[in-house]
Amino acid sequence: MNASLSTRELQALDSAHFIHPFTDTKALAAKGARIISKAEGIWITDREGHRILDGMSGLWCVNVGYGRTELADAAHRQMAELPYYNSFFQTTTEPSILLAAKLAELSPGFSRVFFSGSGSEGNDTVLRLVRHYWSVMGQPKRSTIISRWNAYHGSTVAGASLGGMKYMHEQGGLPIPGIAHIDQPYWVEHGHGMDREAFGKLAASWLEDKILELGPENVGAFIGEPVQGAGGVIIPPASYWTEIERICRKYDILIVADEVICGFGRLGSWWGSQRMGFKPDLMTFAKGVTSGYFPLGGVMVGDRVGEAIVEKGGEFEHGYTYSGHPVACAVALANLDIIEREGLVQRVAEVTGPRLRKGFAALADHPLVAEPEALGFVAGLVLAKEKGGPADGPGFVPFAPELGVGMVCRQHCFDNGLVMRAVGDRMIVAPPLCMTEDEVDELLRRIRYCLDRTYEDVRARGWC
Amino acid sequence: MNASLSTRELQALDSAHFIHPFTDTKALAAKGARIISKAEGIWITDREGHRILDGMSGLWCVNVGYGRTELADAAHRQMAELPYYNSFFQTTTEPSILLAAKLAELSPGFSRVFFSGSGSEGNDTVLRLVRHYWSVMGQPKRSTIISRWNAYHGSTVAGASLGGMKYMHEQGGLPIPGIAHIDQPYWVEHGHGMDREAFGKLAASWLEDKILELGPENVGAFIGEPVQGAGGVIIPPASYWTEIERICRKYDILIVADEVICGFGRLGSWWGSQRMGFKPDLMTFAKGVTSGYFPLGGVMVGDRVGEAIVEKGGEFEHGYTYSGHPVACAVALANLDIIEREGLVQRVAEVTGPRLRKGFAALADHPLVAEPEALGFVAGLVLAKEKGGPADGPGFVPFAPELGVGMVCRQHCFDNGLVMRAVGDRMIVAPPLCMTEDEVDELLRRIRYCLDRTYEDVRARGWC
Ligand SMILES: Cc1ncc(COP(=O)(O)O)c(C=O)c1O
Ligand SMILES: Cc1ncc(COP(=O)(O)O)c(C=O)c1O
Repeated sequence: MNASLSTRELQALDSAHFIHPFTDTKALAAKGARIISKAEGIWITDREGHRILDGMSGLWCVNVGYGRTELADAAHRQMAELPYYNSFFQTTTEPSILLAAKLAELSPGFSRVFFSGSGSEGNDTVLRLVRHYWSVMGQPKRSTIISRWNAYHGSTVAGASLGGMKYMHEQGGLPIPGIAHIDQPYWVEHGHGMDREAFGKLAASWLEDKILELGPENVGAFIGEPVQGAGGVIIPPASYWTEIERICRKYDILIVADEVICGFGRLGSWWGSQRMGFKPDLMTFAKGVTSGYFPLGGVMVGDRVGEAIVEKGGEFEHGYTYSGHPVACAVALANLDIIEREGLVQRVAEVTGPRLRKGFAALADHPLVAEPEALGFVAGLVLAKEKGGPADGPGFVPFAPELGVGMVCRQHCFDNGLVMRAVGDRMIVAPPLCMTEDEVDELLRRIRYCLDRTYEDVRARGWC
Repeated sequence: MNASLSTRELQALDSAHFIHPFTDTKALAAKGARIISKAEGIWITDREGHRILDGMSGLWCVNVGYGRTELADAAHRQMAELPYYNSFFQTTTEPSILLAAKLAELSPGFSRVFFSGSGSEGNDTVLRLVRHYWSVMGQPKRSTIISRWNAYHGSTVAGASLGGMKYMHEQGGLPIPGIAHIDQPYWVEHGHGMDREAFGKLAASWLEDKILELGPENVGAFIGEPVQGAGGVIIPPASYWTEIERICRKYDILIVADEVICGFGRLGSWWGSQRMGFKPDLMTFAKGVTSGYFPLGGVMVGDRVGEAIVEKGGEFEHGYTYSGHPVACAVALANLDIIEREGLVQRVAEVTGPRLRKGFAALADHPLVAEPEALGFVAGLVLAKEKGGPADGPGFVPFAPELGVGMVCRQHCFDNGLVMRAVGDRMIVAPPLCMTEDEVDELLRRIRYCLDRTYEDVRARGWC
């Protein structure tokens, strides 16, 4: 784009002016940020010409892959015709109407949608909707929302509060009142020695404990990602969500699925909750709805909440300037069209997802790997110091967290043409849904190669 | 866009599926939303072919006007090359670097920027930044932010809490703790019978009262829009902001200017705080930075805060998926280029702004108009039942609020080819900065015409 500046010069501007998200800007300045310049399919290319297989779909979002000219064309067409208009003034636009109708059609029985510009804003809308709903229903005390530790629901004050990242809470005086957290259904952390399905039921029972502790008359909703993403691809046992659903119904508590990552095919179903076998009352979405080409998010509103607030709620005192942005909606429509036309959801469910799962299972033989797991197009594994260990342990011996083995591995990946994310010592991928079978194999080859390099490095350092 | 559906059919889909922001969806369904289909320059066109002069720049954002193919082209080019990449993984992109550098250059001495996707998200970042800053400085108790009643800072939980819209607070159990409000510097509400500049100082003194009430050691920042927008274009007396600045400096409290509306030329200066004559520590921006063609917002971080958190803060545990979105940044660069190339800021300051101001002043002779005011390209007036009244009153007799005279006027405007917004009985405009002098005259003609229609209507109803 700006050929006249050298990479060094651009990096200097970057450190001087751009505060990166979730980054130690000073530490980054010392090494210089990697400048990503172009991308095509599942490949990103940096300014030095290194081609890197993007195992993370950007940030869990580029579901249809890079270089889709249909999306650029749709944006251009809409921008030339009507680049923006609001939906505040009893006004609307065709793309926002058509997208709302399309999302209703693609959802399991959700009639209505509220648009936001991001997943975070979507979860802020959830909080406002839940409280408005219960107030319309004459139970305004039901204002507390239960979430989980290590959940990720965004970075607004409400999003971060709903989330369960303690390091985020520490920097902002969070969480805000009216939010409670229970432990996550992560067998490696809490399930040692237990049967996985029995553990799923146990983890769900913590919700009932919390409801009874707070008093059901004070609880408005439970929110969860069908599969936790940023927390490290935590795939709950199959028993978990059906038990959560039973408990929520028992106490008449709304279920909110945060589908920001799982929606739009990620788990081999249109919505993650479908794959997990439960039916939420509200679903937050973002990311995959536009494959990240244009910011868009929102909340799918089921009829229980939708009918109540529309029929009896009067004016809903909430909205964002870009709620229903016509270009965002036009890009989303074009993106959904690609997903449908190319049958990406079905392919992940039936072909490429199972192939990734098999490949991950096969990584179990790697000396560094414990607990490899995949579902649809998310997958994770633990970097372990040693396999085995006591019968009431997780089946492996972890590295000391201070070593930062995950970050060492992430660096080997980047240096060897692969984006793989580290969450502590869990290494995770969430590749573009458009991958071919060959590309899945290439991803798996690169993962094994980078694990080998990491293993050599870690042994050389005397860490195992 | 979808020629096969009739307007009726589209409206039916709209009411069935799209929950509009700040709207009573049931009431809207009864009449059907107006579908805006295309736009060019300062004109929007609905699906029935009505051309409407957009006196609100969309929603305070389309600063360069509609139909700018440069912006559509910039989006297309960047989307084809690199439609998305994150800046979380020690990675960055050229447009985000160049925009960060450009914003620093355009600002009065702000070196750094944190990107968000909207004004709301920007204010969530402000709250996180303020608390992080004071914690890094060893004064974590300084967590409270003081704002004003009738301020608008967005619709996330933090944005709405910082804002002072009581009807928003009521629907969400807001504000969250750690936010305090003082009254706004609105002479019509609080200044009766006082000299305007003396009133400005009085209104600023309420900040000092609140600081002393809370204890300065507990107060982190004061936030305000240089001129309140959504609250009804409340232009404070010239004495206000200089006095606010003096008080904040006295107690070592950070000043945050919410420049979401005022930034990028709205007041005839690049930043509203420049026009108001004060120097903030943080500035929230959005809207005009891309003229609404693409969602983008953020916070300009002055060196006091920037140096502290970068040098001593470690990792900033905050960020949005679309922080620094490459297409958003490319569109912003193209938009800023138009603003600079066409000298829009200067034109508003020297030519079109003064013309609008003169035209508004001339509306004082209209039987329905009190307190007409304009500054740069924002303007407002009050619809008054009668002029005059007691010496310690506002100089007019207001209509009973239940009559909704403002909404009656807004409808006459829409029906007669003009978008003018109603905030209670204040009628406001914020037109595109690209207006020619002739277009300003046309705007003023339409305003007078619609006021005439409103006057006839209101008299026919026996309201005055
Ligand atoms: C499950 C989930 N919810 C919400 C969010 C927040 O989305 P955004 O970054 O667009 O605000 C994310 C982002 O990673 C997410 O993974
Ligand atoms: C001053 C101000 N701040 C913040 C916002 C919120 O911006 P957004 O709607 O993009 O979240 C607005 C929107 O009107 C605004 O006027």
